[in-house]
Amino acid sequence: MQRLLSEIRIAGFGGQGVILAAAVIGKAAAIFEGGYATMTQAFGPEARGGSSSAQVILSTNPILYPYVAQPDVLVVMSQEAYTRFAPQLKPGGILIVEQDMVRVDQVAPGERIYAIPATRLAEQLGRKVVLNIVMVGFFGAVTALLDPDALREAVADSVPPAMQALNLKAFDKGFEYGSRLMQKLMEEGEAEGMLSLDLEVEA
Amino acid sequence: MQRLLSEIRIAGFGGQGVILAAAVIGKAAAIFEGGYATMTQAFGPEARGGSSSAQVILSTNPILYPYVAQPDVLVVMSQEAYTRFAPQLKPGGILIVEQDMVRVDQVAPGERIYAIPATRLAEQLGRKVVLNIVMVGFFGAVTALLDPDALREAVADSVPPAMQALNLKAFDKGFEYGSRLMQKLMEEGEAEGMLSLDLEVEA
Repeated sequence: MQRLLSEIRIAGFGGQGVILAAAVIGKAAAIFEGGYATMTQAFGPEARGGSSSAQVILSTNPILYPYVAQPDVLVVMSQEAYTRFAPQLKPGGILIVEQDMVRVDQVAPGERIYAIPATRLAEQLGRKVVLNIVMVGFFGAVTALLDPDALREAVADSVPPAMQALNLKAFDKGFEYGSRLMQKLMEEGEAEGMLSLDLEVEA
Repeated sequence: MQRLLSEIRIAGFGGQGVILAAAVIGKAAAIFEGGYATMTQAFGPEARGGSSSAQVILSTNPILYPYVAQPDVLVVMSQEAYTRFAPQLKPGGILIVEQDMVRVDQVAPGERIYAIPATRLAEQLGRKVVLNIVMVGFFGAVTALLDPDALREAVADSVPPAMQALNLKAFDKGFEYGSRLMQKLMEEGEAEGMLSLDLEVEA
């Protein structure tokens, strides 16, 4: 039997690079200690709306049925994605949101919500288009599911050579932001609700 | 029971945009007359090599098990991808190759091979990175599996706004190249082997 490590859903709107973010996470799992991963995207009638979502399963063994029912980790980069997928998050799961795109309107008991202004951070690098890789870096820091070096290598592997430097900077920016947030939480004690560097807690 | 329309594999090396190309094709199926599609990428020990491949299934119904065993269409953008996946192509299937990246060394009876210098065409647009979308355009023209307008819409939907114009040009370039090739083949009669606009036939 396969042993599942983790199920992840990433969702947003078209053009935000949802699929590349999912692929980087899947690839990192395979790079790190020879794990396995699948990334699946299903397209149906809702595809027309410009929304985009992808599922990633990380496992210690080859994966036979790559379907995510209840993700352990949900990464959302649009309000529509939040509204649609937040109810599916596993109890006690981790919700990661693009802070300026998503207004979190309810928090389940035990749920941890980590927020990052990824679009703004990407704009600081001069290219909004790398917000997805900022999110991947942040995901790496707050979930600690994958080896950071494997994630970084997966980023470099997944973009054209001319875009590597920019994307690695975006990864580092997201990772550092997440690390600072986790550091702050450790110092201030655990909390539920929405956690961000300015510690807005909505609930 | 689901009715499968077509199974497609796209493969190349990391950074060529294999996944985005697969996602565009999947999305086009869903846009056009409400079809369904899945795009799956599996990551295992081979992920470290920098190779990249994705599977797309097009269907008239929701897809339960998104696994491609023998693709009807194989799109390859590297020699390694050709060597690895060409033996899996369904008899009578369509092989689409990046002409400068892949040396086709054998042709099965009844197999049609369509070649395009997608990287060079992308470079003519000033951005090699859009070679994947040139390939998608070419795929659209030579397979006629999907409505060209749906494919074009899926391209626009799948890239950031700032990149839309460039990617649509890339799509059109690939599509026109494919249309010219198909026109030439109609005029000159069907042929087996490797088909390109300068009609190199290797076999």
